[in-house]
Amino acid sequence: MNTVKDYMEGLGKAARAASRDMAKASTAAKNNALLAMAQAIRANAEQLLAANAADVAEAKANGLEPAMLDRLTLTAKGVETMAQGLEQVAALADPVGEITDLKRQPTGIQVGKMRVPLGVVGIIYEARPNVTADAAALCLKSGNAAILRGGKEALRSNQAIAVCVRAGLKAAGLPEAAVQVIETTDRAAVGALVAMPQYVDVIVPRGGKGLIERISQEARVPVIKHLDGNCHVYIDDSADPVKALKVLMNAKTQRLGTCNTAESLLVSRKAAAQLPALAQALQAKGVEIRGCAETQALVAGAKSATEEDYYTEYLAAIISCKVVADASEAIAHINKYSSAHTDAIITESHANAMRFLREVDSSSVMVNASTRFADGFEYGLGAEIGISTDKFHARGPVGLEGLTSQKWIVLGNGEVRG
Amino acid sequence: MNTVKDYMEGLGKAARAASRDMAKASTAAKNNALLAMAQAIRANAEQLLAANAADVAEAKANGLEPAMLDRLTLTAKGVETMAQGLEQVAALADPVGEITDLKRQPTGIQVGKMRVPLGVVGIIYEARPNVTADAAALCLKSGNAAILRGGKEALRSNQAIAVCVRAGLKAAGLPEAAVQVIETTDRAAVGALVAMPQYVDVIVPRGGKGLIERISQEARVPVIKHLDGNCHVYIDDSADPVKALKVLMNAKTQRLGTCNTAESLLVSRKAAAQLPALAQALQAKGVEIRGCAETQALVAGAKSATEEDYYTEYLAAIISCKVVADASEAIAHINKYSSAHTDAIITESHANAMRFLREVDSSSVMVNASTRFADGFEYGLGAEIGISTDKFHARGPVGLEGLTSQKWIVLGNGEVRG
Repeated sequence: MNTVKDYMEGLGKAARAASRDMAKASTAAKNNALLAMAQAIRANAEQLLAANAADVAEAKANGLEPAMLDRLTLTAKGVETMAQGLEQVAALADPVGEITDLKRQPTGIQVGKMRVPLGVVGIIYEARPNVTADAAALCLKSGNAAILRGGKEALRSNQAIAVCVRAGLKAAGLPEAAVQVIETTDRAAVGALVAMPQYVDVIVPRGGKGLIERISQEARVPVIKHLDGNCHVYIDDSADPVKALKVLMNAKTQRLGTCNTAESLLVSRKAAAQLPALAQALQAKGVEIRGCAETQALVAGAKSATEEDYYTEYLAAIISCKVVADASEAIAHINKYSSAHTDAIITESHANAMRFLREVDSSSVMVNASTRFADGFEYGLGAEIGISTDKFHARGPVGLEGLTSQKWIVLGNGEVRG
Repeated sequence: MNTVKDYMEGLGKAARAASRDMAKASTAAKNNALLAMAQAIRANAEQLLAANAADVAEAKANGLEPAMLDRLTLTAKGVETMAQGLEQVAALADPVGEITDLKRQPTGIQVGKMRVPLGVVGIIYEARPNVTADAAALCLKSGNAAILRGGKEALRSNQAIAVCVRAGLKAAGLPEAAVQVIETTDRAAVGALVAMPQYVDVIVPRGGKGLIERISQEARVPVIKHLDGNCHVYIDDSADPVKALKVLMNAKTQRLGTCNTAESLLVSRKAAAQLPALAQALQAKGVEIRGCAETQALVAGAKSATEEDYYTEYLAAIISCKVVADASEAIAHINKYSSAHTDAIITESHANAMRFLREVDSSSVMVNASTRFADGFEYGLGAEIGISTDKFHARGPVGLEGLTSQKWIVLGNGEVRG
């Protein structure tokens, strides 16, 4: 009898074989596949929407919560956005084959680096059908093969999208196994996927903290993981009050539920006079302030913050607040409590800006800009497979480059080592 | 009672705290520390040699094998080499703080990357005292804190070197906990070291395959690992016979026991006329040929190669050999049997050279050059902490850069996200 493990081994083997072809595929072939996929998605919009409607109906019957239902649901506009996303990835520069740092060494050899695909990428995500197309596109353009595992509620939608993806690959003469969608909803499939180092080179989990922690625990291959975003805005001694207010309000209130939303406000004692106005503006937007004793003395209605508050990613209309002695204390506080996602300083001091940039150990560190900018599109990557809070390999927003590696190349003319 | 785990937690906490200071240490302070260490090593040469003599005496009494005894033994010249190694690392460029790719985005923010230390590096190695100084130097220069665990036979030597390292750190005003040598020989210390993600950011094992596999299995943090070197030389259709002979002989016979030594020879059928002369030259140097049927027909005295031979890193005067149809078969063979360390093509064809460079999935890929060049010094890195056969993060020879990460920096003037 065929077990889930055998099934996954089959996908793994096919993906590994396809990855060899993908690594040497021309940019034109990859772009043609992406454009053909977009075309297939538009041509099959009706089937996609029907498959999705069946998924949504079943999910509703099973009592899926509204926010997840919303993410599961595809509209005609959503289908068009998916197709456009594929076309946008086709328009991005191909990272594969780029040669850099080629330098002649004293022995006569030329030594440099060539950017190459990682090989096979496993992507595990929630019931969001659009991720199926996005993730397929990014893996394909970066010359990798992909094995995709979306949330079980979206199985029919993902299978319908996979048909279009395969049609695109086929039209461009690329192996259809370059993108495979796992067709079982058995959770054992995930366990198998993350423990096949012979077939899978890296896992990218996209979803809640629980999913990511479980996968990191089980994985026997590297994981590009995105844990929480407990982001800080620090108002330094010399902060310009206009910039401070503008950046803080955007960082905290533009969207409450994103990972790059500010969750903690630090104010230098010398800038504490700015705190009442900042707090008032937040409170006017319905944001609850939880602060230290000094905060409470300065801000009417501020609640008391516990130690736990400073570690918390609220994803809600709450912000923790602390008055600190200076930039040194702010940096130390951030390096202790931050989740190392994104932290910003508001300052007119060049010295403090440079110190903050260097010493804050987070994946994005900002001066006089909103933490909300921490995003692959805003950084000019053109696309984003996730935001890594790790230090190893890819850090911060991960675009096509994060799905590649650099190998060394040596060009000689018969040189030998002496 | 103090357990090994408590002891290791203590080292981890101290290292994490020291890593914050190291990350912001000036280049001058780091270089001063390295130069002061070199001075301390020279000044304490007598004590170092005495400690080493005690280690060697005990190892001899315990029947340590000659090759390992050789690596354990320090001479006056070895001590001087160690001091010079520290001075060489002082002379290297500081990778920390380098800002690259700073570009203005449409929103007005400038986005770029800053190179920063990884944090705390754990290094596990065999009984080779010189590695203690080398590893300390590389971690220090790259702004990391280090926890070092050398083979138990070298404990006294390593402790004596650690005294000099600490003296150097102190003289430069850097925290002494920036480099800590584990002072227990309990093997549980290694298990603890590789499973403290809160204190240790990366593990670099240096040693045999067994050690590295065990550590990779147990590790709960990233490992920069170097497994075997089953390196290939492929003689292409159009190979220049002079270059082919020169490169092959160097790759196979310059040193038999190194990871970048060639272990397998592939010859294109169109170049098979070169094989007898190549084989004869190898045999004249005492190298045994194990080949396919075609090899055996062309080479007197060639033995038959098994499937297992093509996977084997001999580290001995043996080479496997196979006649292949063309570059395509050579590339497919290498991607199946190679350990992805270093593989070379000998060719006068530009097209085949470019294909080989792109399609061979190894950490170093070479054209008309000896595999023996795969080395941090030969690549111009100035120093090497190891050679990674992984694709993730660092690949191939790992120098100071491999001990750093790049974070994103954003420079704004009050910009917010729209």
